[in-house]
Amino acid sequence: MAKRFSVDEYADGILAGNRMVLSRAITLVESTLASDQQLAQQVLDRVLPHAGRSVRVGITGVPGVGKSTFIEALGLQLLGQGKRLAVLAVDPTSQRSGGSILGDKTRMNQLAAHARAYIRPSPAGRSLGGVTRSTREAMILCEAAGHDVIFIETVGVGQSETAVHGMVDFFLLLMLAGAGDELQGIKKGIMEMADAVTITKSDGQNETAAKLARREYQNALHLFPLAPSGWNPVVTTSSAVTGAGVAEVWQVVEKYVQQTQTSGYFQRRRQEQNLHWLYEAIRQGLEQQFYARPAVQEHLPTLRQQVIEGSKSAFGAAAELLGL
Amino acid sequence: MAKRFSVDEYADGILAGNRMVLSRAITLVESTLASDQQLAQQVLDRVLPHAGRSVRVGITGVPGVGKSTFIEALGLQLLGQGKRLAVLAVDPTSQRSGGSILGDKTRMNQLAAHARAYIRPSPAGRSLGGVTRSTREAMILCEAAGHDVIFIETVGVGQSETAVHGMVDFFLLLMLAGAGDELQGIKKGIMEMADAVTITKSDGQNETAAKLARREYQNALHLFPLAPSGWNPVVTTSSAVTGAGVAEVWQVVEKYVQQTQTSGYFQRRRQEQNLHWLYEAIRQGLEQQFYARPAVQEHLPTLRQQVIEGSKSAFGAAAELLGL
Repeated sequence: MAKRFSVDEYADGILAGNRMVLSRAITLVESTLASDQQLAQQVLDRVLPHAGRSVRVGITGVPGVGKSTFIEALGLQLLGQGKRLAVLAVDPTSQRSGGSILGDKTRMNQLAAHARAYIRPSPAGRSLGGVTRSTREAMILCEAAGHDVIFIETVGVGQSETAVHGMVDFFLLLMLAGAGDELQGIKKGIMEMADAVTITKSDGQNETAAKLARREYQNALHLFPLAPSGWNPVVTTSSAVTGAGVAEVWQVVEKYVQQTQTSGYFQRRRQEQNLHWLYEAIRQGLEQQFYARPAVQEHLPTLRQQVIEGSKSAFGAAAELLGL
Repeated sequence: MAKRFSVDEYADGILAGNRMVLSRAITLVESTLASDQQLAQQVLDRVLPHAGRSVRVGITGVPGVGKSTFIEALGLQLLGQGKRLAVLAVDPTSQRSGGSILGDKTRMNQLAAHARAYIRPSPAGRSLGGVTRSTREAMILCEAAGHDVIFIETVGVGQSETAVHGMVDFFLLLMLAGAGDELQGIKKGIMEMADAVTITKSDGQNETAAKLARREYQNALHLFPLAPSGWNPVVTTSSAVTGAGVAEVWQVVEKYVQQTQTSGYFQRRRQEQNLHWLYEAIRQGLEQQFYARPAVQEHLPTLRQQVIEGSKSAFGAAAELLGL
């Protein structure tokens, strides 16, 4: 690892929008070394007053839905409006699959080449808790570095969506028309977190199917109750190839932000998210300490097997372990 | 509290199907006294090998959907087949609302009067974690006492549904036709946990609307992907008044059990649930110990406020508290 900066050097560099310092600070946040973690927290506390001014958008959809091309198309439009955009990724499977999403920056080469865009792949080889934690902190650093819009990309097949939903203002789901939802592998519950769904690849021969799917999803979403935001999820069609419908997605986001900022939900939700992450971090820390204890490591395997087989009650086994 | 039995007296009484001993054991499980908890775990470990042989069904729906009458109608049919039925409830709001669900046993007076039915209201004045824990343990005791079918009733408005879903084999959602889902207050996500939905009060003038709602929900559920069980959720209509469709609901449950037992999913899910509860119990125990520390209680309020306001990062504050 490159030589570490001081807290001041990190903070000043980030606030000046220096991309190299930003990248180094994110690497620090991703580090599992205790000394790095301590330094990272000092940097975060320093820049925190300058964070929080972006619109945070979670974007999910299974591989093949066209996430990269959609993000590139929408991202370029935002850059064209003078905005600064950061794209982060949460992909706890990146180690197993042998390559993180966004790892290949050439997938979004126009974005990657743009001076006002910052793209960062998912940290590799971390647990879901570790990835979401460092992504949330990277988001704060990107905001402090002056990015107006943060996209957090996720793969749409696992639990990371819930974690990302808990750190963004707006959750966008990308779906394909006619693929059958089983094939799309969207996990139960993900669709219900969506503030908007866009049916991608709505061009050429696929356009009719996309419009049909749009109506179906809109009907299905109406069966669900109003979210606490008071927002009715919107379903659109879009094509990253023709550009049709891409700007509309951002109009939906802006309408959402305006409506929820007026109602106060936007601010309240951010505060709730902060609090949620506090308790989440405490939980993670407690479990980390607990499972690292030698006595726990010694007795857990046997007790775990007994609980699985049903020869010992879960709470009895837990009580035993907690008493060690 | 009445005099405590010995572990043997509890275990023998439960295994003999003695209702008085069963009730006293459940009271023990619900107790927050450390000595009671210790005794409860010993009793649980003793009877555990005799538990697990029931079909566990979670039943939810908002107040007014007709849960009690439906449970009574279905329960009486099962009792008529010679089955033994236990009905438990999870209602963490029971203290606030001034009366637990099932608290008024007269709501199910025919069931309550039956020798092969055991009805137990939700423990009052406990947290969600406490209620779900003791309900899960009560379920084990009821199984050891020879009940073939366990119904776990929940109110359909909060987080308890997720917890109940994690302790049952089959999740049944009761819905009203034409009330509009917003009015029904079904929380997002609950519908997606359902293995079956039954539209209640499908009788008289309401029958047409119920059949229409049935079709709508069936279509909506088809939009969601296949669950890991490989089971397609079924939507039916039923009337506790005329009895129409009540037996069909149980046929659906039996078909589900047969299908998932054949595929091995049933057994695998039970094992996963056991393991889930082990980690859940550890988490609960760790947090209980942590938040009881005087130093944590002293510093948490200030740090919490700083995190909410965004002047301190969640992970930084957590690290401070964990270091105390």
